[in-house]
Amino acid sequence: MVNIAVMGYGTVGSGVVEVLSLNKNVITQRAGDEINVKYVLDLRDFPGDPVQEKIIHDFEIIVNDPEIRIVVEVMGGVEPAYTFVKRCLEAGKSVATSNKALVAKHGAELLSIARERNINFLFEASVGGGIPIIRALNSSMTADVIEEITGILNGTTNYMLTKMFYEGADYDEVLKEAQDKGYAERNPEADVEGYDACRKIAILSSLISGQQVDFEDIYTEGITKVSRKDMMYAKEMGMTIKLLASSKRHNNHLHAIVSPALLGKEHPLYNVDDVFNAVFVRGNVLGDAMFYGSGAGKLPTASAVVADVVDEAKHLHRNIMTMWKSEKLELLPIEDTSRRFFIRFSGTLQELKERVESCFGPGKAVQIPELTDEFGYMTESMTEGEYRRKAEAFPEIIHVIRAED
Amino acid sequence: MVNIAVMGYGTVGSGVVEVLSLNKNVITQRAGDEINVKYVLDLRDFPGDPVQEKIIHDFEIIVNDPEIRIVVEVMGGVEPAYTFVKRCLEAGKSVATSNKALVAKHGAELLSIARERNINFLFEASVGGGIPIIRALNSSMTADVIEEITGILNGTTNYMLTKMFYEGADYDEVLKEAQDKGYAERNPEADVEGYDACRKIAILSSLISGQQVDFEDIYTEGITKVSRKDMMYAKEMGMTIKLLASSKRHNNHLHAIVSPALLGKEHPLYNVDDVFNAVFVRGNVLGDAMFYGSGAGKLPTASAVVADVVDEAKHLHRNIMTMWKSEKLELLPIEDTSRRFFIRFSGTLQELKERVESCFGPGKAVQIPELTDEFGYMTESMTEGEYRRKAEAFPEIIHVIRAED
Repeated sequence: MVNIAVMGYGTVGSGVVEVLSLNKNVITQRAGDEINVKYVLDLRDFPGDPVQEKIIHDFEIIVNDPEIRIVVEVMGGVEPAYTFVKRCLEAGKSVATSNKALVAKHGAELLSIARERNINFLFEASVGGGIPIIRALNSSMTADVIEEITGILNGTTNYMLTKMFYEGADYDEVLKEAQDKGYAERNPEADVEGYDACRKIAILSSLISGQQVDFEDIYTEGITKVSRKDMMYAKEMGMTIKLLASSKRHNNHLHAIVSPALLGKEHPLYNVDDVFNAVFVRGNVLGDAMFYGSGAGKLPTASAVVADVVDEAKHLHRNIMTMWKSEKLELLPIEDTSRRFFIRFSGTLQELKERVESCFGPGKAVQIPELTDEFGYMTESMTEGEYRRKAEAFPEIIHVIRAED
Repeated sequence: MVNIAVMGYGTVGSGVVEVLSLNKNVITQRAGDEINVKYVLDLRDFPGDPVQEKIIHDFEIIVNDPEIRIVVEVMGGVEPAYTFVKRCLEAGKSVATSNKALVAKHGAELLSIARERNINFLFEASVGGGIPIIRALNSSMTADVIEEITGILNGTTNYMLTKMFYEGADYDEVLKEAQDKGYAERNPEADVEGYDACRKIAILSSLISGQQVDFEDIYTEGITKVSRKDMMYAKEMGMTIKLLASSKRHNNHLHAIVSPALLGKEHPLYNVDDVFNAVFVRGNVLGDAMFYGSGAGKLPTASAVVADVVDEAKHLHRNIMTMWKSEKLELLPIEDTSRRFFIRFSGTLQELKERVESCFGPGKAVQIPELTDEFGYMTESMTEGEYRRKAEAFPEIIHVIRAED
């Protein structure tokens, strides 16, 4: 029997306990031993709940109990999660977590402690919920140099953009609806400003580069400025708008970005709708692969956490996770990266055509019959720096959206 | 340094050597040691080739060399691959293979030898080429009872059906084109009759059930009878036709089948076109997930083989692969499985409507203006046995295609 403790009895924590109970037989078989939840750490009590007798309020009980071999951290937030996880690892206990904020900030250090102790720090659920992308990078795509990883990593914003696309609704409307349905928080900042996706792509970037990618260094733009009108232009061009989190290799550099992006129908992420997440990976020999699934939700996330627990139970004295060094990776500055830009100008195409074309070069003008006082222009590929310099001459610019090719 | 031997220097074998050389640095780092190709076994010589000096013609050299720790088998076919692989495993050498025929037939036994010797028999490339589905089932989806696995597992037939859908071409035309492009063999039987997909779903079914699923027990229908006219009906219904290989759990039974199937736009496999493969998996807690990528091709397949070699180099004395027992799993007979059937009748709807409806029950008639002497009828869900009994009364039936919901 392998004794574990679960820290945090919220949505994911209760899901972990539920999955361990529901699928007990197959889990025991795959782990090679029975997994027993000995403690559940939470500030609250849960009278009447099946774990009622296991609830403890004092972390010291967990860290000091030599019977506890694996600790599940699903409290969220950097503190006290960081202190608790670090102490568990130092005490020789493996840790499985769904906490992207913790992993993005302290992943390198925690992985290194786990490796020194010959135990494990696993975090499959921190990116893409039930999509097994971390394990794919760690143990499946080991023959490849990963040239690109681009994902729809936030279900809330994808739900909102999907609604805007299919129903022609505007941002405020869909945000309210997402909040009413419980898909978005009352304070939706972490989702809609792209902060959540940013931490996730920071983790993936660190894994594929083997170095620390600080999330603060990643250019991050949310969806708060994406409007119904932008979506009308996208449709007109046979495209859609998704919040993409992306990391691409340029020679020995990585460029990472979180930003709304125009996607054509042939892009593998074009059809990823609603709260689903998907990750596109390009390897230099594997070619293109895509992983798709539930990015969040109680049970899918719990499934990923429990899979980590199973792996840790199978490897109680053996470190299996790829490290990333704490040495910081310098990202390619956004100014030096190239793409097409879709620019909306106020005014008429007739008035501005010559100035726009002579400044931004050849491109494709897009007009929408209902929008008489503005037009759009899709440039050819240029660097972000070049775009920004040129855009300075145009107070007429209403909005710009990057295109993903 | 870990010395390996490659058995078979055809497309995949030369790809393996190429990938090991091209990505030497990352592979060494991930394997924790340098992987060195010491021998390449082939009947031919390759003068001028980089491996010229490593070519051997005698298998005994490999099996008797204690320096060889890992053997790559990419010869294909059951013999002599089976004899060679078994002897390598018995000699304590781990084996990585892309050989679906070998794995479908002898997987249980070879896994069991590997486990006894505390070495590994891995076969990621045998199903879905570069799509890491085997490793996902073995180490990622370990918290779930897998309720369904349905895939587009054969790139040749998917290419052909995609052409038929988009270009309205007929079967013979697209087969010839696929042969001219090298996507289909001169003798295309293994692909177009579904035999290739059948072996792959047998492997996946064995893995998710933990027991031996014999490919001979799986109902297998290829695409040779799918015509341009079938595709016209599919389009009319907003659907497409794909060759699906599927395994679904019904209580404690599995039902496995390979058959052309009508899919609606909302099905995750609807958009998988051309030579791409994809696998859809439903777990009882994970929910729905999908994996998409290159199902074949020299480098994607080699990437999967080399990833297995890396895993074996990391686990030289530790068995990591889930076993499936040699005990045979009885599949649910196809007669007892339920689905909708799309039936094409010769004659006019007017003449036959009453007989068809009174026999097959309520359904949806489909007419195509160009096809005046026939019509289609989509039934509601019924068992295959019920369909077959009812169909006996109708010599007017031209063709039937199962629908996937």
